[in-house]
Amino acid sequence: MRKERDYLGKLEIEGEVYYGIHTKRALMNFPSTGEKLDETFIWAYFMVKKACALLNTELGYLDERTGNAIVKACDEWEDLKKHVVVDPLSGGAGTSINMNVNEVIANRATEILGGKKGEYLVDPIDHVNLHQSTNDTFPTSAKIATIVKLRRLIDEVINLQEKIQEKEKEFYSIRKPGRTQLMDGPPIMLGQEFGAFADALARDRWRLYKVEERIRSVNIGGTAIGTGVGAPKDYILKIVEKVREVTKVKIAKAENLIDATQNWDVFAEVHGLLKSLAVNLYKISNDIRLLGSGPNTVIGELILPAVQAGSSIMPGKINPVVSEYVMQICHMVFGHDMILNHACALGNLELNQFAPLIVHLTLKSLTLLTNACRSLASYISKIKANNERCEEHLRRSVSNLTPLIKLFGYEAVSEAIKKANWDIKKAVEILSQEKNIPVEEILKVLNLKKMTGLGYSL
Amino acid sequence: MRKERDYLGKLEIEGEVYYGIHTKRALMNFPSTGEKLDETFIWAYFMVKKACALLNTELGYLDERTGNAIVKACDEWEDLKKHVVVDPLSGGAGTSINMNVNEVIANRATEILGGKKGEYLVDPIDHVNLHQSTNDTFPTSAKIATIVKLRRLIDEVINLQEKIQEKEKEFYSIRKPGRTQLMDGPPIMLGQEFGAFADALARDRWRLYKVEERIRSVNIGGTAIGTGVGAPKDYILKIVEKVREVTKVKIAKAENLIDATQNWDVFAEVHGLLKSLAVNLYKISNDIRLLGSGPNTVIGELILPAVQAGSSIMPGKINPVVSEYVMQICHMVFGHDMILNHACALGNLELNQFAPLIVHLTLKSLTLLTNACRSLASYISKIKANNERCEEHLRRSVSNLTPLIKLFGYEAVSEAIKKANWDIKKAVEILSQEKNIPVEEILKVLNLKKMTGLGYSL
Amino acid sequence: MRKERDYLGKLEIEGEVYYGIHTKRALMNFPSTGEKLDETFIWAYFMVKKACALLNTELGYLDERTGNAIVKACDEWEDLKKHVVVDPLSGGAGTSINMNVNEVIANRATEILGGKKGEYLVDPIDHVNLHQSTNDTFPTSAKIATIVKLRRLIDEVINLQEKIQEKEKEFYSIRKPGRTQLMDGPPIMLGQEFGAFADALARDRWRLYKVEERIRSVNIGGTAIGTGVGAPKDYILKIVEKVREVTKVKIAKAENLIDATQNWDVFAEVHGLLKSLAVNLYKISNDIRLLGSGPNTVIGELILPAVQAGSSIMPGKINPVVSEYVMQICHMVFGHDMILNHACALGNLELNQFAPLIVHLTLKSLTLLTNACRSLASYISKIKANNERCEEHLRRSVSNLTPLIKLFGYEAVSEAIKKANWDIKKAVEILSQEKNIPVEEILKVLNLKKMTGLGYSL
Amino acid sequence: MRKERDYLGKLEIEGEVYYGIHTKRALMNFPSTGEKLDETFIWAYFMVKKACALLNTELGYLDERTGNAIVKACDEWEDLKKHVVVDPLSGGAGTSINMNVNEVIANRATEILGGKKGEYLVDPIDHVNLHQSTNDTFPTSAKIATIVKLRRLIDEVINLQEKIQEKEKEFYSIRKPGRTQLMDGPPIMLGQEFGAFADALARDRWRLYKVEERIRSVNIGGTAIGTGVGAPKDYILKIVEKVREVTKVKIAKAENLIDATQNWDVFAEVHGLLKSLAVNLYKISNDIRLLGSGPNTVIGELILPAVQAGSSIMPGKINPVVSEYVMQICHMVFGHDMILNHACALGNLELNQFAPLIVHLTLKSLTLLTNACRSLASYISKIKANNERCEEHLRRSVSNLTPLIKLFGYEAVSEAIKKANWDIKKAVEILSQEKNIPVEEILKVLNLKKMTGLGYSL
Repeated sequence: MRKERDYLGKLEIEGEVYYGIHTKRALMNFPSTGEKLDETFIWAYFMVKKACALLNTELGYLDERTGNAIVKACDEWEDLKKHVVVDPLSGGAGTSINMNVNEVIANRATEILGGKKGEYLVDPIDHVNLHQSTNDTFPTSAKIATIVKLRRLIDEVINLQEKIQEKEKEFYSIRKPGRTQLMDGPPIMLGQEFGAFADALARDRWRLYKVEERIRSVNIGGTAIGTGVGAPKDYILKIVEKVREVTKVKIAKAENLIDATQNWDVFAEVHGLLKSLAVNLYKISNDIRLLGSGPNTVIGELILPAVQAGSSIMPGKINPVVSEYVMQICHMVFGHDMILNHACALGNLELNQFAPLIVHLTLKSLTLLTNACRSLASYISKIKANNERCEEHLRRSVSNLTPLIKLFGYEAVSEAIKKANWDIKKAVEILSQEKNIPVEEILKVLNLKKMTGLGYSL
Repeated sequence: MRKERDYLGKLEIEGEVYYGIHTKRALMNFPSTGEKLDETFIWAYFMVKKACALLNTELGYLDERTGNAIVKACDEWEDLKKHVVVDPLSGGAGTSINMNVNEVIANRATEILGGKKGEYLVDPIDHVNLHQSTNDTFPTSAKIATIVKLRRLIDEVINLQEKIQEKEKEFYSIRKPGRTQLMDGPPIMLGQEFGAFADALARDRWRLYKVEERIRSVNIGGTAIGTGVGAPKDYILKIVEKVREVTKVKIAKAENLIDATQNWDVFAEVHGLLKSLAVNLYKISNDIRLLGSGPNTVIGELILPAVQAGSSIMPGKINPVVSEYVMQICHMVFGHDMILNHACALGNLELNQFAPLIVHLTLKSLTLLTNACRSLASYISKIKANNERCEEHLRRSVSNLTPLIKLFGYEAVSEAIKKANWDIKKAVEILSQEKNIPVEEILKVLNLKKMTGLGYSL
Repeated sequence: MRKERDYLGKLEIEGEVYYGIHTKRALMNFPSTGEKLDETFIWAYFMVKKACALLNTELGYLDERTGNAIVKACDEWEDLKKHVVVDPLSGGAGTSINMNVNEVIANRATEILGGKKGEYLVDPIDHVNLHQSTNDTFPTSAKIATIVKLRRLIDEVINLQEKIQEKEKEFYSIRKPGRTQLMDGPPIMLGQEFGAFADALARDRWRLYKVEERIRSVNIGGTAIGTGVGAPKDYILKIVEKVREVTKVKIAKAENLIDATQNWDVFAEVHGLLKSLAVNLYKISNDIRLLGSGPNTVIGELILPAVQAGSSIMPGKINPVVSEYVMQICHMVFGHDMILNHACALGNLELNQFAPLIVHLTLKSLTLLTNACRSLASYISKIKANNERCEEHLRRSVSNLTPLIKLFGYEAVSEAIKKANWDIKKAVEILSQEKNIPVEEILKVLNLKKMTGLGYSL
Repeated sequence: MRKERDYLGKLEIEGEVYYGIHTKRALMNFPSTGEKLDETFIWAYFMVKKACALLNTELGYLDERTGNAIVKACDEWEDLKKHVVVDPLSGGAGTSINMNVNEVIANRATEILGGKKGEYLVDPIDHVNLHQSTNDTFPTSAKIATIVKLRRLIDEVINLQEKIQEKEKEFYSIRKPGRTQLMDGPPIMLGQEFGAFADALARDRWRLYKVEERIRSVNIGGTAIGTGVGAPKDYILKIVEKVREVTKVKIAKAENLIDATQNWDVFAEVHGLLKSLAVNLYKISNDIRLLGSGPNTVIGELILPAVQAGSSIMPGKINPVVSEYVMQICHMVFGHDMILNHACALGNLELNQFAPLIVHLTLKSLTLLTNACRSLASYISKIKANNERCEEHLRRSVSNLTPLIKLFGYEAVSEAIKKANWDIKKAVEILSQEKNIPVEEILKVLNLKKMTGLGYSL
């Protein structure tokens, strides 16, 4: 146990932890929500601190010894990250999280300089946080982490698309009925269905590539409200480049630092693109669930992979468990999207007090979607087609008669189908009789093979 | 009264209406929700029908007399629109709305050819709907209407941004305290605050410009499920260009018609950009409400325009009524956004059964945001500053002492402020005594005028 | 045209309208959102005004002539309602709507006393609004309207439940497979499925009955902030009873008028019960859609009523259009619920500035759900069962073998099913061979008829 | 390392873990979302298993030795819980979570009987899961956990209400202006404001008490789809009572087990009551934030407790950090509410595939709200009033003149206020001059002290 004090008083801190009194107070004020800070975000925050220390040393605002100790401590982020313990939903617009990082670095740097934790040879605020505010380092770190995590997500989307395209090829020649509003529709190829999945994901790839340019503009140097109060001009001019160097992430300085500090619409926009991916993942997962349903008493045109036993009571049951996992994740992402809209809109004046919530949910959605894509890709690669079922269904779809409207008009064909009680063979017979055209001739024009080609018409 | 029949039976139709039995059934199945079909959407749908008729005539699928009558009827859309009465939230993926349009055009075209309503010299399905499906005409019309309405919205965003920029200039030299988390922050110019509003809207302009390219890819020609079943190839190849000619909207043919028919992620994406505008409108409106609050017992730095009496009981009360109107509209848009995420995700297989909901809410958000921008622009142009209040507040903000941390360290300054019970004059005196520096010298470095310039630091 | 003035200046008003300058300003400030004020709410507002006039006259605060004229005007609400034109989403916490009602009544009462519109022999504020504020009359009228509309909704829920129970009986003896996670499950009766729908609605009936007690506590008499400022004590004590008399709705005076004025959690709670109904309507509609899907290539165990043609291109197609209508309405209700949560939470201090949004969406949800129930009840009453399909599916469900786990253990049965490639006949043969038990003996215990009775087990 | 097999094949399992192959597959299929299973839920699940083992032994379905070993293993839940590792958002409607619990108990019971992990002297399915399905044990355990956690929440709500009531008394005699729409309103007592907070929470207490009766009806015994297939009748009849005995939670058997298995509207309803608490917590937290804002340049009528330093750059800044924490938690709860509406509505036929999501978010909201109440109670207990500021503001509110409308009419008073440019002293002078009444006489009726009493009127 050691004692630390700030201007509000003294507190005891466990001896071995690297955080200090500001973190301790936060732990008392904000009982754990069960959420954990994103690891990439912690990395980004340490790297921002490192860049600031490097620049402050270069410009002479920090002596070399102090500066080097901070830099060295930042490089040990992987060992230190477990000491960044403040709740992601803590109040204070991120102040406690920033102070947690400052304290961990300061205590480690103090050790590096031969001191003990709590001695603060390196001061968390006056040295580690020099020329910085939570209000510029927090969103800057968040944007860097977003970009890094985004690239991982893109890789998984690409992989998923490829796995789907393999199925597109594999199922190329399997004919089956389409369905609109879950009702029998005209013929389609099973491969075409997977092709539509793949092309939806192509839009997501394009969207995600575009995200980076939307979010790369950062406000570091703006300090508390974007006017850079408390920071010198030479520092402000160079800090973005230094952070870019350290993180290798292509951020750019925001043109209006005041705007970039208080307005978080960019996170609403970016998450608006993430949720579009969730829309497609949901649709694909749900369609796979439908196509594999039964397998004996619903559609069953796909054979779902038996990745685990489906039931603890019904033997041999195989459930669409990965579809369900992905769909649940998408529901979470839709929840995050809705929360983010409000959290971004509800910022007041020079700051958004809900910054921690915004950052946490954005990064969490990235994690969730990355996991969802990976799991779904592996699942889809094991899917097989039930050719016989497809074939059997193909012959039974009411909408196979669509091309006949050219011959007999819409109402006449509809009436025949209704009289035949939705039995298409009978419907053709009825039309044959009524119109005096031999059944074979009618069937000839109802070429199910050609009907999946573009623009089949009599 | 006239009687009409379809393959389900007969119904009586009021004599004077242009719609027919399909519409009548829809009116019975879907009690009014109180929602109204968007007028621009009705226009777009008539124009799509016109383009189809023109092309079908050119290619010889319709005889000239019939084709011309349809075209003429379509051109009378403004007179006929009141007969498009199906509820925007009707089930059937838009079929009833398409049929309503088909019937109105068919009956009017029948009249043009000398017939009577209900005689259907021009048939709603076999002529007006020739080579079309709800599933391709409905989303195509929706995208065209979206683009047209988007342009109107952009105009209003530009106007709003200009009105805000005028205030940015007008308030350029008015100094006042910033506020973070609603607590006293370092100085800022009132003009800078409006500048941050304007720059947020600049992002919205960019976003809205980009929407058009996201939504211009249409699936007309794909008919029921994107395979173009029932439509001939020459028609499919030329129909997009014909619709472009008729509407003057730069749509393009989707590369994969099957994908474009079943996947509606683009609407989630586009609305995700609209809601980003709502985020900014909310923040701006709320900030204006806060800055004008009181006026005597809260902030009162802005003098809100007295656009109407604020109360029916408290005399002389002026409320931020336009802020509140805009914020309520933004809540509606957030609601639409959330609904759209789900509606787009929940489509099944070859079609999205919730197309009417998606289209209706997208177009409604466009209307709402256009109104909100117009109303807010007019409101903001009448806002005045309360210079004295700004001046008075400027001197009282605790955060004015921020630059002193360079001199005394963060903890020492904080302690002095605490001892002084957040009275900044007293805090300076305490520091002066403790550190043996004359008050005047301390005040000299606390230059409130310079503190709003970029990077004020000791 | 006539001219009116308030303390902000003069405006021209169209001669024939009953509203006045306050309404006119509101029309200018709040461009139409397309939403319409609920008619029952307008009725309730007129009745509250009537009650106030009656009591103010009784207590001598209004002279009889004026009081009577106001009462008479209120009784003409049905003719006057078209003059209540302010947008439901207007800013001002309802002030413009209250003033619109005040002005319409004042002008009509003025006419009754022999004056002309705009002369205001009866004053909108000093007479019609006497001892009232928007802040007490608006929520009070809203709660009364909610209760009245709730009763209509309950009637429709009861009717829907009855229609479902008729089907429960009709389908009592039809056996078919259950499905969990859309995969083949153990047998169930079609009637049992409808029974589950009906029992879910039973909970809704109970919930809706309970709503009335949650919302009957009103704040009329509290005026601006619940302290009753501007209103005399005798009036405050008696006004609730007078409103109860006039409206026949059993409201009660809130115990804490300040709380009842500023806190709107009750609307969030009440809508939380409405959305529970939407949850059940969605589930029921979606299940019907699934059970009727195909009809030839999906489940098709129900024969959906052909209430309209399902397609403009695919002849004979019947779509689950009423299910889709109801599901879209439920999506709207979920949207309203989400908006209401925020609007109720975001009220500030002594008032909720989003009162108009809260009231409008609550009443709109009531209308939507009432429509949805009515439409769905009529639809369900026309549904038929496809007995043969049910029978055929019954024999094919993999989960029919569930009782065998008692005999052979879960893993052994699962393995046999897997070896048989989900063909249950083959699976039984495999088990028969492996365990040396004749097939007939195994089949004897697999009594599909008994399996739907409670607790079928070996 | 040990090897286990199921009917899908073999897998290696780490030697020391108590879970088995089904869990292992789930870990591979569902990458971690970062969410953790609720501990009370794990307890409840073990207790349900214990009850089943007890009853199965009593009824002779399990031999005593096996039964006792299972019971003993269940009692060790606290040591075993770390082996329940399946992701809360796993697909499979809870099957993997149930199997995880089954395997942990089976392996521990095997050890108790002298065997080794993986030997399964006690079988996870045939013994531990005997007569059970995920589909009845999962929701039953969830409801039990909900009830237990609810009681903890109620305690914290009571504590919060008490802390607020202490402030109500402490601030009883402090007069200050009310504010409607953030604009100066008539006088109110600071104690009355806290009284309104407390009375809102009184409704929440009532609501939460009512939750228990809504959720106590359970479906255990219904097995897979509510028909009890695979379970014997004597077991079905007695199992609920046994679970009640073991858990001491007053559950009751659902009247319709099929309904109770497939319909989850009760969770939407219950969460609809939880979110009403979030509405009130948000309003209270936000109001405290507003009343303590500044403190020098906004309202500052409350002195917020300095629970931690507010900024890493602005010295002496105290932020409303606990308000912000609570508000962020409420945003999460609103997100959960929205997700739950959809997840509950989207269940299909005999089961809801999103059960894991529904259960997880319900229990998480309970944890979050419990934390929020605790943190807020402690925070509020340290709040102080700034009497001078209240006094100063009291004299400046424009709405103090409200009672004068009786004397001069609404328009005249409004006009005077406008002429005086919202300076109330000047406004009184203007009225005095215009109406020829001495200022003192006017001021006499404007008794600010009396104006907070019920019904102050001239």
